[in-house]
Amino acid sequence: MSLLETTIEKIISQDDSFRAQAKDRLDRLTMPHWALGRLMDLAVDLAGMTRSLHPPIEKRIVVTMAADHGVAAEGVSKYPQEVTAQMVHNFVNGGAGINALARAVAADVAVVDMGVAADLSELVAEGRIISKRVGTGTKSMAVGPAMSRNEAIRCIEAGIEVANRWASSADLIGTGDMGIGNTTAGSAIAAVFTGVSAAEVTGRGTGVDDDQLAHKVRVIEKALDVNKPDPADGLDVLAKVGGFEIGGIAGLALGAAAMKKPVLLDGFPATAGGLIAYSLAPASAEYMIAAHGSVERGHKVMHNHLGKVPLLDLDLRLGEGTGAALAMNLVEAAVRILTEVATFDEAGVSEADE
Amino acid sequence: MSLLETTIEKIISQDDSFRAQAKDRLDRLTMPHWALGRLMDLAVDLAGMTRSLHPPIEKRIVVTMAADHGVAAEGVSKYPQEVTAQMVHNFVNGGAGINALARAVAADVAVVDMGVAADLSELVAEGRIISKRVGTGTKSMAVGPAMSRNEAIRCIEAGIEVANRWASSADLIGTGDMGIGNTTAGSAIAAVFTGVSAAEVTGRGTGVDDDQLAHKVRVIEKALDVNKPDPADGLDVLAKVGGFEIGGIAGLALGAAAMKKPVLLDGFPATAGGLIAYSLAPASAEYMIAAHGSVERGHKVMHNHLGKVPLLDLDLRLGEGTGAALAMNLVEAAVRILTEVATFDEAGVSEADE
Repeated sequence: MSLLETTIEKIISQDDSFRAQAKDRLDRLTMPHWALGRLMDLAVDLAGMTRSLHPPIEKRIVVTMAADHGVAAEGVSKYPQEVTAQMVHNFVNGGAGINALARAVAADVAVVDMGVAADLSELVAEGRIISKRVGTGTKSMAVGPAMSRNEAIRCIEAGIEVANRWASSADLIGTGDMGIGNTTAGSAIAAVFTGVSAAEVTGRGTGVDDDQLAHKVRVIEKALDVNKPDPADGLDVLAKVGGFEIGGIAGLALGAAAMKKPVLLDGFPATAGGLIAYSLAPASAEYMIAAHGSVERGHKVMHNHLGKVPLLDLDLRLGEGTGAALAMNLVEAAVRILTEVATFDEAGVSEADE
Repeated sequence: MSLLETTIEKIISQDDSFRAQAKDRLDRLTMPHWALGRLMDLAVDLAGMTRSLHPPIEKRIVVTMAADHGVAAEGVSKYPQEVTAQMVHNFVNGGAGINALARAVAADVAVVDMGVAADLSELVAEGRIISKRVGTGTKSMAVGPAMSRNEAIRCIEAGIEVANRWASSADLIGTGDMGIGNTTAGSAIAAVFTGVSAAEVTGRGTGVDDDQLAHKVRVIEKALDVNKPDPADGLDVLAKVGGFEIGGIAGLALGAAAMKKPVLLDGFPATAGGLIAYSLAPASAEYMIAAHGSVERGHKVMHNHLGKVPLLDLDLRLGEGTGAALAMNLVEAAVRILTEVATFDEAGVSEADE
């Protein structure tokens, strides 16, 4: 069997017994019942994912996957394509948003070249980025498939390999993306899987104006029309309208789920990776935590499809893993609630009048 | 002049020049414009509050103020009054929700007895809590004023003294409350200041059922009718339908604003303290950060009155300062964005096509 097949086979649902044990303890904490709301729901999920009443979350990594998109040539972004490679340099120099926010949660940042349209070999040689290049950017989805089916499998398996690399050195994995043009791919993926129209799942990305937005929607409609991706076949969707970093993130999510580790979905393109993973292995969604709801309008449609309500809602639209890093604080809070708060019995506090 | 008067006199607006300098830098960061949304708004606020482009936020304290409420005798809570004192013991033993969440952000927890209906002198003697007792719980607002006007001033000045105590040892102050019956006081305060009906600002507090909720609303309506608090006079509102800990929190917010330090408003009763502070010194609201929007339905009405949108929305309804502690992570994130992310010039990244 292929790495993808063996990984999918390992993905099983959360453990109901650990969920129940966590819930039982949380029900008895010295506070009005379930008074820490969604953090308590999250604590139950973490117990179910990790099969532990002390879910390990100390070792944290944000994996920021970068790649270029042929569709950028269609004028769907405010920024030129070279920004993808420039931002990779910014990541390794520690000057980007993700570096600042990862430091705040004591998370490492791993940068993966999934297929940037630039020579990054020096950074690879210096050990500052991981190379999993599938190609020199995708082809434009507006005229044909973004990549071959074989390349789609290679992206996903690369993401699984990256996840496996941290099998014993990360408890909590954040996903991040960088790729000029990748909200266009994200919108196309959302439209295919959810059946919602391109216009309703397409937002301004880096900040395009009304005319550019209308153009972006037309490009996506054309890509869907030209390629006719099959929503029942996640590899087909990734190949036709996806991106190398989106496939990498899908693999990262599958790899994390196979290892029973929580994975934080960041923004719109990262969540598109989550949709691909979900289509290949529905139980993988049980290991995904929706970190934040972005400004990008299709993000809510994606979260609904995954059955998730994001933890944060701060009008973010950066990507890179920034929302995933921020939400690691809330994961830590959930674990501390489960493990550090006293029960009524332990603290000698009177319970509610019934 | 009294301590209250001198404190109010010191409260001035945020500094526009520091706000503008912060905005200027944030405009040039290596990301699509304002792509970290509300965290960037918060960074501008922090610069304006602290008069610094490196707002100090390292030293953190959550001040949890406890007191009892005469109105608890009317059966407005699911819990008996003795829980207030029991929870004070839980706080000092480190077993409560606030202890777990304060540890997560490296914040100290200071517990203040503003007027708990129990003998806590042993904890005071051991230096484990601060005593600022104004009385042995308030009187029931359902039959007359909760406290005298003089006691209202004493509560607020106690809160100012507590803030001043951390003048040089805290950069960031979180507010917290504990007091069985205090969402009833919070709802009454919200109704007075906003003009919204008691029914629309009253929620389930610790989790009362429909009948108990209807009763709670009637108790609040009766209190407003019996006392007729003057919305133009914050001391009158606090005296007639407030609580000792709510007054203490108002003083804490005023003291923080006078020292130009950010203060995080936690849940419903803590935000009621914010409303009292705002009524006495409107500019104090410029130093308040709304940490989270609680399940308590009147909380949104309070935030609207203060012109705030809360940072977190996690269905919390615990109080104690738990939401304030959680939001300290977002304050840190905002400062790191302002101080650690490179600009386009610094990083050599191409700017947007115009």
